[in-house]
Amino acid sequence: MKLAMIGLGKMGINLTENLIRNGNEVVAFDLNDGARNDASTLGARVEKSLKDAVLALEAPRVVWVMLPAGNPTNTTIDTLSEILNENDIVIDGGNSFYKDSLRHNKILTDKNIKFFDVGTSGGMSGANRDGNFMIGGDDEKTFEYIEPIFKGIAQTDGYLYTGRAGSGHYLKMVHNGIEYGMMQAIAEGFDVLKHSEFDYDNEAVAKVWEHGSVVRGWLMELTQSAFSKDPDLDEIKGVMHSSGEGKWTVEEALRLQVPTPVIGASLMMRYRSLEDDTFTGKVVAALRNEFGGHVVEINNNGNKDKK
Amino acid sequence: MKLAMIGLGKMGINLTENLIRNGNEVVAFDLNDGARNDASTLGARVEKSLKDAVLALEAPRVVWVMLPAGNPTNTTIDTLSEILNENDIVIDGGNSFYKDSLRHNKILTDKNIKFFDVGTSGGMSGANRDGNFMIGGDDEKTFEYIEPIFKGIAQTDGYLYTGRAGSGHYLKMVHNGIEYGMMQAIAEGFDVLKHSEFDYDNEAVAKVWEHGSVVRGWLMELTQSAFSKDPDLDEIKGVMHSSGEGKWTVEEALRLQVPTPVIGASLMMRYRSLEDDTFTGKVVAALRNEFGGHVVEINNNGNKDKK
Repeated sequence: MKLAMIGLGKMGINLTENLIRNGNEVVAFDLNDGARNDASTLGARVEKSLKDAVLALEAPRVVWVMLPAGNPTNTTIDTLSEILNENDIVIDGGNSFYKDSLRHNKILTDKNIKFFDVGTSGGMSGANRDGNFMIGGDDEKTFEYIEPIFKGIAQTDGYLYTGRAGSGHYLKMVHNGIEYGMMQAIAEGFDVLKHSEFDYDNEAVAKVWEHGSVVRGWLMELTQSAFSKDPDLDEIKGVMHSSGEGKWTVEEALRLQVPTPVIGASLMMRYRSLEDDTFTGKVVAALRNEFGGHVVEINNNGNKDKK
Repeated sequence: MKLAMIGLGKMGINLTENLIRNGNEVVAFDLNDGARNDASTLGARVEKSLKDAVLALEAPRVVWVMLPAGNPTNTTIDTLSEILNENDIVIDGGNSFYKDSLRHNKILTDKNIKFFDVGTSGGMSGANRDGNFMIGGDDEKTFEYIEPIFKGIAQTDGYLYTGRAGSGHYLKMVHNGIEYGMMQAIAEGFDVLKHSEFDYDNEAVAKVWEHGSVVRGWLMELTQSAFSKDPDLDEIKGVMHSSGEGKWTVEEALRLQVPTPVIGASLMMRYRSLEDDTFTGKVVAALRNEFGGHVVEINNNGNKDKK
């Protein structure tokens, strides 16, 4: 099938390679020259604007948007709603918030343009080969039309049509929430081992757990891989950034009043890791001092931290 | 190698089959007649007492104890310390608390009997084939003597000698703590999906996540398996029992002052699941009523719940 790939970042470039390997013709666009050159080397036809990329397709046009969630995706879909025709197809393979996807669906279907919100998992390696796709979209018949694309680039059984628009990105959101909890659980376990009276080889532990234990899985493989490069991770700081899906999962859990203490705590520990010191810590230390005369540690930065 | 298997429960009987398949001679003992018959059918020589099983071995005797942690294991190891000779070998493959294992190590090594504390993971299927073993023991030379046993019954790379006595069961304890967190994270995610505005097929979701997603792994396979039998798990109650290792992990984290909010919360949610109503709930409801006049729900059980 011929389709456009809009956005040639870490995911988009790997998807382009995967699509071409599986017999698709890819028209690729990215604002970045280097990314366009990379796509060209992989065999994609590259275009210098979104519009040119769209015009290089034949009806019904299939446009895969693979951009950061939020503004880049939102403005691109707005533009596509202007330049595409009836029955053309937009796939948002990024990590858009599902309510944005519901809005995109409305904007596009109002013009009879078909929309699919596709959660993409498996990281860069999955984008490149044997990926994982959760596909929402109101029009099941059109899904069947584009299904061969996913059949080619996904792992066997690695894609699922999840029903109406929004359900693909919603499922990916919850997948990432689960991922937060699993990652934090693995990390806490290794933290206990590190502080224990025994002398464990982190990589050897991850490796044995990867081979037949109950906690085996891709995250444990990645844990082994990380320890193989840096046995005690001395080279990196324990700062845990996040890109939204975990927060959205917790917000959704709050909205639905579903208790998710583990996913919630995972998210809070990520935020905690962004701060060297906390105001919570200061308040508790001050209160212990107030009622019990317990010693407080003085901030050597002096006035700098006083606001 | 010839060795005794003491305890033919779910794990012991599967290990017996695995050991025999891999060319070992097994002398099996269990208090239960049916379990002994099963072992006999598998090709084990069965004995009617611990002592008879031990006497059926040749020096250095290798005795694998596969019993519930606590009293059954403790009393068996006490007895073995009386009836074994110098240089005989005891393997505790159960889920003993590592401090019990340190005590067992002292009792046995004081008599120059060798001791190995072996954490066994992979469930019943792993015990039967391609198991996972974390092996602690002070005497590395003796480990090398028994290593062929593990090489045969473990998955490739599925066993690890972790160093001095206690380290095997300690590692298994932390493994199970991680397992608690991962299971709770998976479960919370499916709970959000169930309450969402979309209509997901639980089994199909677990299946697609198993094929290429970041959260793929054995627990997700088991999740799919459970949903394949009972699509919404209507047949079972959400009561989450536990058998000690998660609690020990949290106790150890507290002792070491290592923050483990996710493993801790997983454990607390297990305890919460054991109660239909909670005293915590009553106290909070009562306080909301006291300060804000908020409605409390009346317990229809009347006096029954008042103690």
